[in-house]
Amino acid sequence: MLIKKLAALILLVTAFAASLATNLVQAKEVTPAKAHPNLILTQEGVKKIRANLGTTPLFDASLQKIKAQVDAEIASGIHTPIPKDFSGGYTHFRHKQNFKLAQQAGVLYQILQDDKYAVYVRDMLLQYEAMYKHLPKHPQERSYSRGKLFWQCLNDSNWLVFMSQAYDTVYHFLSAAERNKLENNLFRPFADYISLENPKFYNRVHNHSTWGNAAVGMIGLVMNDQALIDRALYGIEDDGLPLGGFDNDGGIIKAKDQKKGFFANLEDPFSPDGYYTEGPYYQRYAMYPFLIFALGMENARPDLKVLQHKDNVLLKGVNALLNLTDADGQFFPLNDAQKGMSYYTASLVSAVNLAYHYGDKNPKLLSIAKKQGQVLLDQSGLAVAMAIHEGKSQPFTKKSINLTDGINGKQGGLAVLRYGDEDLTLVYKYTAQGLSHGHYDKLSFSLYEKADEIIQDYGMVRFVNIGQKGGGNYLPENKSWAKATITHNTLSQNGEMHFSGKYKTASAEHSELYFYDDKNDDVQVVSATETNAYPGTKMHRTMALIKDDHFENALLLDIMKVTSNSNNEYDLPFYYMGQMISANFDYHSPATLNPLGDKNGYQHLYLEGKGKPSTHQNNANSMTDVNTNTKFSWFGKGKYYTLTSATDKSDQLLLTRIGANDPDFNLRRDAGFMIRRNDRDTTFVSVIESHGSYSPVSEASLNSSSSVAHLNVIYDNDNYTAVTITDVNGNEQLFILSNNNAASSATHELSVNNNVYKWTGPYYYQ
Amino acid sequence: MLIKKLAALILLVTAFAASLATNLVQAKEVTPAKAHPNLILTQEGVKKIRANLGTTPLFDASLQKIKAQVDAEIASGIHTPIPKDFSGGYTHFRHKQNFKLAQQAGVLYQILQDDKYAVYVRDMLLQYEAMYKHLPKHPQERSYSRGKLFWQCLNDSNWLVFMSQAYDTVYHFLSAAERNKLENNLFRPFADYISLENPKFYNRVHNHSTWGNAAVGMIGLVMNDQALIDRALYGIEDDGLPLGGFDNDGGIIKAKDQKKGFFANLEDPFSPDGYYTEGPYYQRYAMYPFLIFALGMENARPDLKVLQHKDNVLLKGVNALLNLTDADGQFFPLNDAQKGMSYYTASLVSAVNLAYHYGDKNPKLLSIAKKQGQVLLDQSGLAVAMAIHEGKSQPFTKKSINLTDGINGKQGGLAVLRYGDEDLTLVYKYTAQGLSHGHYDKLSFSLYEKADEIIQDYGMVRFVNIGQKGGGNYLPENKSWAKATITHNTLSQNGEMHFSGKYKTASAEHSELYFYDDKNDDVQVVSATETNAYPGTKMHRTMALIKDDHFENALLLDIMKVTSNSNNEYDLPFYYMGQMISANFDYHSPATLNPLGDKNGYQHLYLEGKGKPSTHQNNANSMTDVNTNTKFSWFGKGKYYTLTSATDKSDQLLLTRIGANDPDFNLRRDAGFMIRRNDRDTTFVSVIESHGSYSPVSEASLNSSSSVAHLNVIYDNDNYTAVTITDVNGNEQLFILSNNNAASSATHELSVNNNVYKWTGPYYYQ
Repeated sequence: MLIKKLAALILLVTAFAASLATNLVQAKEVTPAKAHPNLILTQEGVKKIRANLGTTPLFDASLQKIKAQVDAEIASGIHTPIPKDFSGGYTHFRHKQNFKLAQQAGVLYQILQDDKYAVYVRDMLLQYEAMYKHLPKHPQERSYSRGKLFWQCLNDSNWLVFMSQAYDTVYHFLSAAERNKLENNLFRPFADYISLENPKFYNRVHNHSTWGNAAVGMIGLVMNDQALIDRALYGIEDDGLPLGGFDNDGGIIKAKDQKKGFFANLEDPFSPDGYYTEGPYYQRYAMYPFLIFALGMENARPDLKVLQHKDNVLLKGVNALLNLTDADGQFFPLNDAQKGMSYYTASLVSAVNLAYHYGDKNPKLLSIAKKQGQVLLDQSGLAVAMAIHEGKSQPFTKKSINLTDGINGKQGGLAVLRYGDEDLTLVYKYTAQGLSHGHYDKLSFSLYEKADEIIQDYGMVRFVNIGQKGGGNYLPENKSWAKATITHNTLSQNGEMHFSGKYKTASAEHSELYFYDDKNDDVQVVSATETNAYPGTKMHRTMALIKDDHFENALLLDIMKVTSNSNNEYDLPFYYMGQMISANFDYHSPATLNPLGDKNGYQHLYLEGKGKPSTHQNNANSMTDVNTNTKFSWFGKGKYYTLTSATDKSDQLLLTRIGANDPDFNLRRDAGFMIRRNDRDTTFVSVIESHGSYSPVSEASLNSSSSVAHLNVIYDNDNYTAVTITDVNGNEQLFILSNNNAASSATHELSVNNNVYKWTGPYYYQ
Repeated sequence: MLIKKLAALILLVTAFAASLATNLVQAKEVTPAKAHPNLILTQEGVKKIRANLGTTPLFDASLQKIKAQVDAEIASGIHTPIPKDFSGGYTHFRHKQNFKLAQQAGVLYQILQDDKYAVYVRDMLLQYEAMYKHLPKHPQERSYSRGKLFWQCLNDSNWLVFMSQAYDTVYHFLSAAERNKLENNLFRPFADYISLENPKFYNRVHNHSTWGNAAVGMIGLVMNDQALIDRALYGIEDDGLPLGGFDNDGGIIKAKDQKKGFFANLEDPFSPDGYYTEGPYYQRYAMYPFLIFALGMENARPDLKVLQHKDNVLLKGVNALLNLTDADGQFFPLNDAQKGMSYYTASLVSAVNLAYHYGDKNPKLLSIAKKQGQVLLDQSGLAVAMAIHEGKSQPFTKKSINLTDGINGKQGGLAVLRYGDEDLTLVYKYTAQGLSHGHYDKLSFSLYEKADEIIQDYGMVRFVNIGQKGGGNYLPENKSWAKATITHNTLSQNGEMHFSGKYKTASAEHSELYFYDDKNDDVQVVSATETNAYPGTKMHRTMALIKDDHFENALLLDIMKVTSNSNNEYDLPFYYMGQMISANFDYHSPATLNPLGDKNGYQHLYLEGKGKPSTHQNNANSMTDVNTNTKFSWFGKGKYYTLTSATDKSDQLLLTRIGANDPDFNLRRDAGFMIRRNDRDTTFVSVIESHGSYSPVSEASLNSSSSVAHLNVIYDNDNYTAVTITDVNGNEQLFILSNNNAASSATHELSVNNNVYKWTGPYYYQ
């Protein structure tokens, strides 16, 4: 308490002294050659914005909105509390607000040329200067790299990225003395702290370091400090760190031949297609410092072509990110990701505006900007608002897309197959591990109808910024559940995780694309293999979106072919979203619920039911089946769904519920359906249909039954797998997959059941 | 199969013969005195509608929509399959479609004067005539009163209510021979079947009988058959039924002095305020036959004043029904009720249109009609559409309302307290049992923020019309779970249900209002008592919506005072909606989940956690507490909620999950928080706050902590209960309740903690 009071007193006294100093030095100097603002907002940009005020509705509305917010905050005074809380707490929230407000106030100062905004920024910065020079490390000790204003250097870096922009906009409003004071007592020590004093944080390839690099670089640009700019671009030459070490998320701090600096961060995690290896949730987070610093460099040092680095990978990244969303613009929750994050978030407003203005003026981006309903208050935002006003906007129609992963695009990838207007969307993951936020889910998938999850990816176990939930940080169940293999819609073997859950091993490997083909809208196929997740076992999963007139909607066909050098227990779960409607098999539902296992995520699943495939088919007209069909139907958001699987009679069918061993109620009680099979080489074949609808208002139940009468694997060996899908009217479709030659030019001939099929390319469908 | 084919053949031949007959008789006769249509749509109405075509957008749009649907159906032909399925199956759906289409086609014929619509109705009716005369009872045997077209007489009655209207509209289009044929072979036998041959169904006070009465009465009106009209209004004089017997829902078929007929059905279940004792879900269902037959009577026999019966109770019923909805227009799921049913359903379009036109032209009803986006194609729909077009619509702002239950309004009631624009809505139930659809939940409540449930009423366990779920009928868990006491947010004693779950006992009793006071927007109170649910125990529950500037939003204060002649175990559950965020007490969360009990609904609850109130308060500044405060917070749809309860140190705190002993997965896996106390006389006092917000897009968590520092019961005896609510800044509010004198004129004086409080009326708040 005494220390607190003392600190507060020092703060008061220093703030007073600072304000005195400010009042004494009023002369403003402007050096035209290096005239500010020149970091993000430029002098020319300001001119153009001012000339267009009142003529571009979206820009004007954005300006009014920001102005109202900043005016309200100015009226409430400047609050720089002594740092104390985790994310979710007051001091965290307040300092986060401050840097956003300062950046916005600086912009308002430039656009509206009203000194009160500059005064607000100046006084806030001086208040920080007074506090910062005496500030110890943040009292919360959880982070591997504690910040000063915040519990981790990451958030301190956020602060500096924004405050650099604020400083740039009021640069000439400040006196030389004020600038010296701020640079010597606040900005430079701040930049040194998050870099030189925290190399663990700063000197990696990771979204943390990206923020750190950008922060140091941006303040370096404003202060015209080449050492800082170099440190940003190339990292710390000799950080003195030993090899190894882990951050809070289990990521390795220093690997052998560790790369570092902004260029490395730009180089490594992005594939040539713009896919960011951590996944879209973190790409969204890292996109801001990537773009904003690249833009700062573009303005200050266009010769280094940071913005165009790696064949415009940053601008490609924006396109990739927008494509990794469902019909409501929510990012697919790959790896660690909070569900609900979407392209309506602030960093995507920046990304879309900058990608439009500094990219190829793609008119489709304008429709996203329109949906976002706001633009940046800079030249890019003005350009977007003007173009929208001129009616240049075009719909951003999402098509199927296949994105490579890895620095050279050779470490697997991610495919999104879409049918219609996002009526059915498959997200199929055959990526690399995705750094420390990666999950152990090779060849997993999720399935959407518009923005509704049919088969979900769980996402992460973290309530970001909700203090009561572990300070808003990652919760223990993120490791024990969210990252586990059984958590995902992919194959688990003998209850083990892929790569035994070992990060280092997993990080060295990736899945391999077998083929991707979206040329035919009605039959789109992606196929990939994984041979390292379980040594001695090869998984080859092929997924096809098929639209056939015999079915109401497009189907998903899922062929998971497993070959192994040993007998194993295989688990293939489907985390369906909704309420079970019917099953065609008998099962026992216990009165007492027990966890399904004791480790690798199984300890978080309750077994709610256990059965075996039905030995007779319900349909009296059924032909003799090679396999026994298992059917499981559920009701989602107004729609019916049925999974039909060609199961073996000895399979076990498990009905699971998430939530065991969850004393803090951190997990959602969602359901799962799981096929368990003991075998060596085997092929799991399933079809998922969306059909019919139900409305509680009309109480009309339409087409509530599956239209798949039979799903048969009629041929399956090393060379080919052939599957027939027969509808309730007896129409039969045949899908044949070539298992060992994916060449689009290869010709095939196969005789099945006395019919001979000839085709070119990896698959046949008729 | 043979019978099926034979029946189909007969059908074809007869249809062909019928169509021949039709073509031969072309002369149309019109008797001006009894000119049709005169049942619902009137000749004058048709004239007015035709005169206004193209001038009233909502009417024209509704007409176009219906026309498009009917045209499409006409193109697809007439389908009258041999009855076979339960609700949810094809034949059920098809016959249901048919009667709606016939009614609509008849209206189109009148409005558009295009013979094709009359031909469609005629051919469909003749096709039914051909089938019906040979039709046995429906093959599904579950119903206590099997229909012929449908599995229960109820649906057959639906058919006749609509087909009567269809017949009326094409009456003069048909030849006398056709009319004779239809009346003799179809309509009269049909009416006799659902009445004379099924008195169990027809001769009761029940929504089933209401449909039956209306059906018989409406066809009687069209055929001008006084015997049928009398049978509709007054029931079957001597039904020959023995006393007793149960329907499929457990309702008694014949009680002593059983009332019967439409008047009795209009009289008994409606309170003078228009509250329907079964609850809004069934009121919505019964409203259509009530109103449509009353309107038919109004047109044919205005002297009987059916529409105005019981002081306009039908029109009052529409108002009550609209008030029993959340902010999205969804009915509160009291008693057996499917969630999601709302005033957007077809029967409410009728109700709103008819109540407007035949009532006092309440302009607020127009705003509901606007939201519904469609109107009836008759004179009432035209009136509504014209009034909307003339800009007469006013917002239907829902205020607090207290509705009596029972024929004379003396059997308890239902209170809805609303703060602001439905920002917080309390639904408090102190009704009678509610016939066979009633639940055993005296003094239970539910709580809403706009249309989001904070504390839920579970509703029913039935998937209406979803065939896979028990034929779309009530499921076993409706009785074992949905109706039970522990299922609801009210007191259970010794694990027993109210009235021991005995329908007959429960039906003889009701709760009593203590007082209701909504005069002060900022302190609205409802209080009621129940002395019969547990003989020897009196429950007195008082609930107040309080808006105080010291709290972000309005609070709910809940005082459940229990006095008993024995020691008991009391359970008071709160079925919160959302994910638990924090609790201020320690609890044990078992790895294995067991049901909480073995009967009375307890068998469906898993125990997920068990603890005791914290013996020390978290707040270091805490004063000495009389009680120990228990706090439980959860996160709902974007909002935080906290329940603070003044608990005893010996209480048990249980965290429950619905879903045990649910082998068919008919139940939702929702959570509950329960206070268990062993005591004799005791008072449960709790406060529920809504506070703050969270957005997964901005990831901003605002005001995530409760603002209640202390909740103390500072005085509690037979005369008074006094409660203080102290906020985190130390502001204290005092609520005193007079426990035995609710007179608004009574003056009180009470000394608590050396302060003397004087006031007038049942409560004090400051």
